[in-house]
Amino acid sequence: MNDLKMTIPPLDAEMGQKVREYIDILTKPPGSLGRLEELAIQLAEMTSEAFPVVSPPGVIVFAADHGVSEEGVSAYPQEVTVQMVMNFLNGGAAINVFSRQIGAMFEIVDIGVAADIEADGVVQRKIRYGTRNFCKHNAMTREEVEKAITVGYERAEHMIKHGCKCLILGEMGIGNTTPSSAILAVLSGQDIRTLVGRGTGIAPEKISQKQDVISRALMERNPDRNDPIDILMKIGGLEIAGMTGAMLAAAANRIPILVDGFICTVSALLAKEMCETASEYMIVGHQSVEPGHEIALQLLRKKPLVDLDLRLGEGSGAAIAFPILQAATLMLKEMATFASAGILIE
Amino acid sequence: MNDLKMTIPPLDAEMGQKVREYIDILTKPPGSLGRLEELAIQLAEMTSEAFPVVSPPGVIVFAADHGVSEEGVSAYPQEVTVQMVMNFLNGGAAINVFSRQIGAMFEIVDIGVAADIEADGVVQRKIRYGTRNFCKHNAMTREEVEKAITVGYERAEHMIKHGCKCLILGEMGIGNTTPSSAILAVLSGQDIRTLVGRGTGIAPEKISQKQDVISRALMERNPDRNDPIDILMKIGGLEIAGMTGAMLAAAANRIPILVDGFICTVSALLAKEMCETASEYMIVGHQSVEPGHEIALQLLRKKPLVDLDLRLGEGSGAAIAFPILQAATLMLKEMATFASAGILIE
Repeated sequence: MNDLKMTIPPLDAEMGQKVREYIDILTKPPGSLGRLEELAIQLAEMTSEAFPVVSPPGVIVFAADHGVSEEGVSAYPQEVTVQMVMNFLNGGAAINVFSRQIGAMFEIVDIGVAADIEADGVVQRKIRYGTRNFCKHNAMTREEVEKAITVGYERAEHMIKHGCKCLILGEMGIGNTTPSSAILAVLSGQDIRTLVGRGTGIAPEKISQKQDVISRALMERNPDRNDPIDILMKIGGLEIAGMTGAMLAAAANRIPILVDGFICTVSALLAKEMCETASEYMIVGHQSVEPGHEIALQLLRKKPLVDLDLRLGEGSGAAIAFPILQAATLMLKEMATFASAGILIE
Repeated sequence: MNDLKMTIPPLDAEMGQKVREYIDILTKPPGSLGRLEELAIQLAEMTSEAFPVVSPPGVIVFAADHGVSEEGVSAYPQEVTVQMVMNFLNGGAAINVFSRQIGAMFEIVDIGVAADIEADGVVQRKIRYGTRNFCKHNAMTREEVEKAITVGYERAEHMIKHGCKCLILGEMGIGNTTPSSAILAVLSGQDIRTLVGRGTGIAPEKISQKQDVISRALMERNPDRNDPIDILMKIGGLEIAGMTGAMLAAAANRIPILVDGFICTVSALLAKEMCETASEYMIVGHQSVEPGHEIALQLLRKKPLVDLDLRLGEGSGAAIAFPILQAATLMLKEMATFASAGILIE
């Protein structure tokens, strides 16, 4: 991990100001396109482009398993992770559908699925066959965390080199709201009962079991709040670390990051812990139903673009929100100015 | 107007139920795509299609002027209506940009601009050179209202015949938040002070002047709450009536209507007054900043798809929200089922 480019450039405030002034001469009442105007300015600050571009976007889905799923914290058995990876490869999952809709580049990375995946198309970067059950052991070693971050970093750089102009990260891993909630408990200092939700849909009575599992793990593992690598090592997940690495790469390359729901926002918080400036390259796509998301967003200090009661993950909410980001760039590029349209206003 | 097809068919609840059950076998946790699932069911109910389609959408912008603008209720002079029509024809307005983004059919109808527009491309259906100042006279005659509704109806039917699968209505008319606020005051029974906002951006001190103008007009004209034609005749606008007619045509043809902001929602309320079932074919695209919009939405009993602090009109907010509707249809059409993906769940 030491050879990753971890210096992230600051935003270009000057370009932001230029674009802010330009927006006010477009043929519309000042401020009347609200958040689209703010987005256009933010994208200009991130990219140093007067007419920033976000197409084509790139979607990378990281898949991994979680030892803690043996504690019965998920509505689905672990085998579903592999089956869903196959579904991604066949183009039948929600994120495939929405990626096609927005013309995204797409890849799926096996960063730690608990079984071998013998199929063309999956990017093979397995670090281990799932994490260990963090109720009993550290989830992984420090070295494995660093490898996972590096894998994410490299996959993002690869996609950026191939022309991706906006990065969307997704995850697939049965049980992964559990490590995410545990990490958020450490980062926020909040009581686990306020953070834990139904994930992909466990029965209400299983929520308290999930809370107990996390409380026990936090007590046993006692991660260091100020060391994101320690947190990931003790209670993290390989796909969570992978997304963190990918976000660091996007920020280092001044590529806007469109953050998805709960798990992705936890990865975003870890990236911010590792490099504060990284968060300046993030825009949050949607507000998830998962109760911890609200708290994670407060820590990240971001307001999502849409709120559609989604709780799927895979990057799906970010992909659904992407056309709003694109609309902001098209507004800048294609709208007439009052002068060019021959409209005289005092 | 008497020969318009005003019988609007009820929703197809049976098809809705079929689609509801189908959504639960798609490869995602049940309910995890939240509002997209509801949208897919609504679209199936509207269209009686198991796999409803909303592309290509159609955008019709109605332009007209308002005699009341001589009372100084707008931030812009009346001439801007013509200038903006020319901007629409040249493709430089916000709604042009967003229409292109979503692949929409597009037309602009002069239904009552206060000047002659000598340009190819505009659909010439001028009923009068702007309404009269409703502080002093009725805005128009009953016959003119009926003509405007018919124009809207016919333009929508024309676009539907040419293949439009989802209708977005927009308006351009300097001063038109004033008649819209007046209509909403009549329909809602609420105090005008809670309804009136800054429109396209008048100074805060001019808001009370706008409120006075509307209060005076309501007292002088005294429109009949139970007669939408009377309301439009006394305090309405030609583009407002045109949008109402277009929505009635869409509903009669079972074409989903994606409602824009404040003024468009007032037209939607009038369509609902004329035929209750019409509102069942409506989905609201966005929440406007204009304070009356919240009240109009409560009357319409609809929750908008996005809230991006927009207050432009032209149909722009609906066009920005359209990809969410499209995502709902693609989810249905393209996602694998658990069985087709070979995923076994108990």
